[in-house]
Formats: sequence, C-alpha cells, structure tokens
Amino acid sequence: MAKHLIADLYGCGEIIDNSQAIIDAAHKAIEYVGAEIVEECVHVFEPIGTTYFAVISTSHFSVHTWPEYGYAAIDIFSCTDGVVDGIAEKLKELFEAKEIKIQILERSINDAP
Amino acid sequence: MAKHLIADLYGCGEIIDNSQAIIDAAHKAIEYVGAEIVEECVHVFEPIGTTYFAVISTSHFSVHTWPEYGYAAIDIFSCTDGVVDGIAEKLKELFEAKEIKIQILERSINDAP
Repeated sequence: MAKHLIADLYGCGEIIDNSQAIIDAAHKAIEYVGAEIVEECVHVFEPIGTTYFAVISTSHFSVHTWPEYGYAAIDIFSCTDGVVDGIAEKLKELFEAKEIKIQILERSINDAP
Repeated sequence: MAKHLIADLYGCGEIIDNSQAIIDAAHKAIEYVGAEIVEECVHVFEPIGTTYFAVISTSHFSVHTWPEYGYAAIDIFSCTDGVVDGIAEKLKELFEAKEIKIQILERSINDAP
C-alpha cells in the first residue's frame, strides 16, 4: 500500500518568500525520508510564490507556497509502505512553521480496493 | 478553500505503457479542468513507468503510472474552490481505465483550520 502524505503548513517564516531556501528545505526533507531525487523542476510565480516538484525514487515530493498567507502545501507520495517517523516535526522545523496539519492517504497500487 | 483531487485508476489500457500518450491525456485533462500549463516535466523510468508533472495556473497536475499493474495515480491540486463536474468519467475515459477511485481533500490556504 502506497502512502500519500498531505501537509499544510501555516505561519511559515521568511523561507516562504525565498525560492532557493525552499529548494534547500525540500532537499533536506527528501533526504530525511530516505528518497533520492530523480528529476526536479521549480517555478517561481510573479509577483510571489514558488512551486517545487521532485520525481523521487519512491514517487514524488511537491511544495507550493503562498507567501501572502505564510502558507506552504507539501505532498509526499511514496510507493513504499511506511511514513517516516517525525516527518511532521521535520517539515515544521524546515519551513519554520507555527502550525502543521497532516493527512495521510492510502493508495492501493496493485489492486483496486 | 483549495481542493486536492486524488484519483487511483485501475485496469488502464495500452496508454499506460506509452509516455507520449500519457502526456497527451494529461494535456486533455488539464484543458478539461480549465487550467493552463505553466511548466511541465516528464520522467520515464527504466524499464517501465512514467511520471508527468505540470505546474498549472491553479497549482499542479501529476500522473504516475505502474504499467505492470495497469495502475495510474493522478493528482489535481487546485487553489480554486470547485472540482470540475465529470472529472472522474473524463479521467477514466482518457486513461482507458476499468475502475477509478476518487478522494477529494480540502486544503485551507489562507487560514489554519
């Protein structure tokens, strides 16, 4: 069973308006979950907002930021079974967030549920 | 309130093992939901499997395929309020799927819930 972790981060710090810092934080989060980056793309919106997407060895990692709200939307879709312990705290720390909401979905890859 | 649509498609047709056909289907789905592509990236795995990701005007659209299982995982994250009517049937048709499972999550962008 694959896991899809959906994280909403609120009250993020200055990082939220700094594309390079967002990329660096994404790299650290991907390393934390033990995945490897296969391909990545970044889009910086005008006037503000960054989207970062990585194809990782186990599926994908994405970040969208809305600096005007101090909000970041993070997804980690992983075709492995586990969700890494402590990932909520890790994302909160990396994105300097005051609050985080996590939802974890199960996705059956090899059989209709 | 943003919407995140998570679609699991089972029993997909021949498209599932054809990267260009997957890209074409993704383009049609993005057009169907009325979004515009801002940036896109594609990764073709060895020996099989394709990941397609598009930054769209309203957030992102992603597809991962596991041809060995006839399975495609599709996400449409949209910072607009609505989920387009008929999207389940449209995705099923585009990916020639026998079965589709849809989950829709609400994500609050401008305020912690």
